[in-house]
Amino acid sequence: MNIILIEESDFTGANTVRLAGRRFIHIRQVHQATHGQELAVGLINGATGRGKILNQSPDSIDLQVVLDTVPPSPLPITLCLALPRPKQLKRIVRSVTALGVKRIIIFHSRRVQKSYWQSPVLTNGLLAEYMRAGLEQAKDTILPTIAFKRAFRPFVEDDVPYIIKNSVALIAHPQGRRQCPQSLDKQACLFVGPEGGFIGWEIEKLQQAGCMPVTLGHRILRVEDAVTVFIAKLL
Amino acid sequence: MNIILIEESDFTGANTVRLAGRRFIHIRQVHQATHGQELAVGLINGATGRGKILNQSPDSIDLQVVLDTVPPSPLPITLCLALPRPKQLKRIVRSVTALGVKRIIIFHSRRVQKSYWQSPVLTNGLLAEYMRAGLEQAKDTILPTIAFKRAFRPFVEDDVPYIIKNSVALIAHPQGRRQCPQSLDKQACLFVGPEGGFIGWEIEKLQQAGCMPVTLGHRILRVEDAVTVFIAKLL
Repeated sequence: MNIILIEESDFTGANTVRLAGRRFIHIRQVHQATHGQELAVGLINGATGRGKILNQSPDSIDLQVVLDTVPPSPLPITLCLALPRPKQLKRIVRSVTALGVKRIIIFHSRRVQKSYWQSPVLTNGLLAEYMRAGLEQAKDTILPTIAFKRAFRPFVEDDVPYIIKNSVALIAHPQGRRQCPQSLDKQACLFVGPEGGFIGWEIEKLQQAGCMPVTLGHRILRVEDAVTVFIAKLL
Repeated sequence: MNIILIEESDFTGANTVRLAGRRFIHIRQVHQATHGQELAVGLINGATGRGKILNQSPDSIDLQVVLDTVPPSPLPITLCLALPRPKQLKRIVRSVTALGVKRIIIFHSRRVQKSYWQSPVLTNGLLAEYMRAGLEQAKDTILPTIAFKRAFRPFVEDDVPYIIKNSVALIAHPQGRRQCPQSLDKQACLFVGPEGGFIGWEIEKLQQAGCMPVTLGHRILRVEDAVTVFIAKLL
């Protein structure tokens, strides 16, 4: 937690917030913060700044906050990811949030296990917690959006052309003939398939929609490594 | 498991191996392999090739193997990593093995929790299993070496100058003024600190030894993401 994230509902006055629960415990245990000490704070989807410790009770802490700094700039990258194993998805969401991705689209693909779509992780708020952990890591405040597309054909035919508009659209594909470009300074859409890869028809459909297969190297990577490598190349 | 790894001790004849346990279960359950079918195999620290299924018993399987292909080329990268949380270390070892790193050096640094050095993960053979998982992912056979350096000063003074000889030696450091280079085609040594970063004196000592601080961007990353991003930049 490199920044304490606060919300509108934490405010008890124009410039004061009261924190309880996880953030309170973190401030007390990790920062061992004392009266008058300043901590990095940020308002979810707002500015970052500093919070000065005012009062502590046994179960909450009051801070006086100054929010005067813009959060770090977002990455101009949309991540389109075939639904991975839910346990991996959590870690990927945290990592790409820390890296600065602001738009995540999770879609179905032939080699995605259908049972993954039944996972409570997709609906129980846990992904939002992992996004917050990513923001806290990177001292960021802007939550990514996440969308789910449960059928490949309408996704690739109806949504993808719209999603990739004005972007360079790249598919991580071991058989891609082109190398992944580096240090792209344009808007980019990155497509990453499931363990086992896209099937041929899916690659064709993505190509028809305007996406280009590129290789990340000759080694087959786990999805979570492929995602980080793909983004890192374009950083 | 994109390749079945075999060992010298698995051979029952010049070209036949008998597999039991985890690999047998994998072949039966995931490949649902039948007599005559061919699977990708590789000899640990040797060549890769194919294995044709001969006989199956209730608890083992015999393969006739042809090993005629060189494994994928190694990455010319040495990873020098401050000991992370042992749970993270396992995942990092698996990932960097899949990426092709062949030399891993784990060292102590001021902000490493001393208790991490007591973890059974460092001595119970689990890291070797994670390396194998990395090789199986990337269809590789060459195990990395891993070394542990439990004191920073002798490491940086006595070992580092020797380790980085004939290499570009880079330290991931948020305050680094230079950008990390891309697509380096030389031997490289990458130094990654603990959560919380190196202390100033450690950076100075590493610089005196010939290492250069570089930045991976203005966001603070978790160690496992920093490692993957660092390697990906040089791929």
